[in-house]
Amino acid sequence: MIDYNKTRILLEPNEIPKEWVNILPDLPVPMTPLINPMDGKPAPPELACAIFPKECVLQEISQDPLIPIPKELREIYAKSYRPTPLHRACGLEKELGIVGDDIKILFKNESVSPTGSHKPNTVLAQAYYSKRNGVSELITETGAGQWGSALSYGCNLFDIKCTVYMVRASFLQKPGRKILMRAFNGEVHASPSNLTDSGKIYFEKDPDHPGSLGIAISEAVEHSMRSDKSRYALGSVVNFVLLHQTIIGQEVKAQLNKIDIQPDVLIGCMGGGSNLGGLIIPFVRDKLQGKNPDIEIIGVEPRACPSVNKGTYRWDYGDSAKKAPILKMYTLGHNFIPSPIHSGGLRYHGMAPIISILSGKKIMSSVMHHQTEVITSGLMFAKTEGILPAPEAAHAIKEAVNQALIAKENNEKKNIVFCLSGHGFFDLLAYKEYMIGNLVDYELPSDEIQKALTAPDMPNVDETRF
Amino acid sequence: MIDYNKTRILLEPNEIPKEWVNILPDLPVPMTPLINPMDGKPAPPELACAIFPKECVLQEISQDPLIPIPKELREIYAKSYRPTPLHRACGLEKELGIVGDDIKILFKNESVSPTGSHKPNTVLAQAYYSKRNGVSELITETGAGQWGSALSYGCNLFDIKCTVYMVRASFLQKPGRKILMRAFNGEVHASPSNLTDSGKIYFEKDPDHPGSLGIAISEAVEHSMRSDKSRYALGSVVNFVLLHQTIIGQEVKAQLNKIDIQPDVLIGCMGGGSNLGGLIIPFVRDKLQGKNPDIEIIGVEPRACPSVNKGTYRWDYGDSAKKAPILKMYTLGHNFIPSPIHSGGLRYHGMAPIISILSGKKIMSSVMHHQTEVITSGLMFAKTEGILPAPEAAHAIKEAVNQALIAKENNEKKNIVFCLSGHGFFDLLAYKEYMIGNLVDYELPSDEIQKALTAPDMPNVDETRF
Repeated sequence: MIDYNKTRILLEPNEIPKEWVNILPDLPVPMTPLINPMDGKPAPPELACAIFPKECVLQEISQDPLIPIPKELREIYAKSYRPTPLHRACGLEKELGIVGDDIKILFKNESVSPTGSHKPNTVLAQAYYSKRNGVSELITETGAGQWGSALSYGCNLFDIKCTVYMVRASFLQKPGRKILMRAFNGEVHASPSNLTDSGKIYFEKDPDHPGSLGIAISEAVEHSMRSDKSRYALGSVVNFVLLHQTIIGQEVKAQLNKIDIQPDVLIGCMGGGSNLGGLIIPFVRDKLQGKNPDIEIIGVEPRACPSVNKGTYRWDYGDSAKKAPILKMYTLGHNFIPSPIHSGGLRYHGMAPIISILSGKKIMSSVMHHQTEVITSGLMFAKTEGILPAPEAAHAIKEAVNQALIAKENNEKKNIVFCLSGHGFFDLLAYKEYMIGNLVDYELPSDEIQKALTAPDMPNVDETRF
Repeated sequence: MIDYNKTRILLEPNEIPKEWVNILPDLPVPMTPLINPMDGKPAPPELACAIFPKECVLQEISQDPLIPIPKELREIYAKSYRPTPLHRACGLEKELGIVGDDIKILFKNESVSPTGSHKPNTVLAQAYYSKRNGVSELITETGAGQWGSALSYGCNLFDIKCTVYMVRASFLQKPGRKILMRAFNGEVHASPSNLTDSGKIYFEKDPDHPGSLGIAISEAVEHSMRSDKSRYALGSVVNFVLLHQTIIGQEVKAQLNKIDIQPDVLIGCMGGGSNLGGLIIPFVRDKLQGKNPDIEIIGVEPRACPSVNKGTYRWDYGDSAKKAPILKMYTLGHNFIPSPIHSGGLRYHGMAPIISILSGKKIMSSVMHHQTEVITSGLMFAKTEGILPAPEAAHAIKEAVNQALIAKENNEKKNIVFCLSGHGFFDLLAYKEYMIGNLVDYELPSDEIQKALTAPDMPNVDETRF
């Protein structure tokens, strides 16, 4: 009998986790609240419930260590794509000159979802709760379209209307994801639009305005607050999104147990922090409870947008339009505009509060890489493992390669596990630019960070008041 | 416990079939030989071995009912993506107003492979045997790039050079698949090129010549015959390719057994015939042995290129350049140029000899659909099942929908199984054209078929000589 399990470890549908892991009760410091951008005070649940589905708001602040995943939702995961496989990257190991079993590289393959990334994990949960709460429309913004297409997919399965405000520049330049959203019944508007007050300001001056993520967020939030039956959907950063993603790390745990491997290093890319959070939280809880004290956790940022590596831990708006809640997090300032790297999913100015606390308390570390070295590793991975990674996911690959080479150099034993958050079928332009020598690395504009962090409109939150 | 098995039926890696099913010994008439286009005589194995990998040539003519799949190859399948899931299309059933279990629609999901279609099933086998036979380079042609990217992927895993001649018009207009091929180490040349005599004829007159599949085949075959270490790779039509694809149907059988379902109808789209052949052959063998006499088998063709529905069963060149072997098959004539429908994979003038014999002997039937109705069904499938199908695969969906509606109308019990041969992430243009109302249906140019079938260069093969 062939020991296939050593190379691609699968789980049965019945092994889909029964609970999400909530890290809040185990954090070394209490989680900071969401702050209402209108008055600088903690947003009461009623207010948050006007924006987000009610059960997500309750999850956002819950202190229960485990939150049950509804049976119907587990069925939807199982029907669609979960559990996802864990692979041993034998081809990549060989390419790096690693022989034997002392150093192992493994990766969780979230690219097998219907829209090609980990995003549906939270989309299905948000759509499920929305349906249960009588919400009939979810609204969001999208840049390149990764999040918008995942939301369209999930809403459609639950027969909820999905409306997406897509930055006009992307709407015009990246027709692929727009078509995918429409194929999943999503209603896609170029932003700024003339459908909201926030959009009209720009649209009426210039109907061809290229837009920005900030404007698109404003439009989506405004739209979502118009009706009692509509809510705003968020794809990362907040606690409940990371909670939904812990299905990733729990599956990884079960898969590693199956082959008797203890991980030494966990690696994930981080933009808002959701795929990383999803991978690490179940292991972080063990670490905080003293069960695996030596496990190393590494978040990988692009050098063009290194919120944790170069930012400040402070209160800031969740979005540049100052409509979303104020969060305490590592941030480059909500006015910081990162260079146009191809990893659109990593161009967020802040970092999830959970990841920010774990970073601040040195429970995890973070590194930065330039996009050229990242795409180099992405191509190495494609050639050796046969899967073309999303540029975002290639950040994790680059760091896994580094860790493996260091272990090899030092003759260490090391089990390295990273999250392959998505495939690169919609990011072929990044690879093309690399192949023809057009890909550039951006020097970090540190004066711009300084400027953004000291801008007069940075929020002041009086923590003594709560 | 949730009965997830009713909606997505999985197999363990150890359940990957141990043998391929060879239908040749069970066919009602003997398989016709490959004919050498140079002299009109059956190609001796030595000659075929100069073009194809030796073990594939032996498989092409083997009369063994089962051919073992090498253990190492099964390991590669398992490591990469197999077994693939079988889904119950509950969402689609609901959309069609089907309730209860009397009518069931199930589909085999071949879209989960690394290049998004069933093509890697044979690529991995051909690359494996090439490696074992000391072949260091596989050469092929590609139109839209589906086959070229699958071959690049597979060759790369076995450390074999892959060279692809890509029709220049596609090379320029469809950069995505070209980038994917290069990401997998494939060497891609726009065809006509100045690298072969067959290409130079056109290239020297016009370096911007748009090319054709015929010219690209000529270039690939010429290139492959240049060295003892290089061979030509074929992605459909011939017996050994259909043999490799029988892994699909065998998995389906095991998956249906797991949920105690006997299929009444099997459906697949057919261009060259490989995904359909792969699905049906294990069931056809049972049928020919009297085990499931009533099973219905339906191949689906585009109305713009209906080889079986409107063609003639006769000897014809496998390619328009007349370099590939002559086959006895249903054909529209090697000079027939189908209209530019979006299902590039179904624009082949002929049909696999195995499928041709099964069709001629009424063991299976075939139907035709227009691309607009096909894409309509494809979108219905995306919206209800969450997977955007390739336009080729949407042909099978359209017919599955038809069959389900007929059964519903007649109050019949019916288990309908079709092959989802690939996803549509690289075919978004087809969906876009549909959405903006630009998709057109082509009337069948029957005079062109007539013209192609009576062309003076149609081959004459004297069957009395063998």
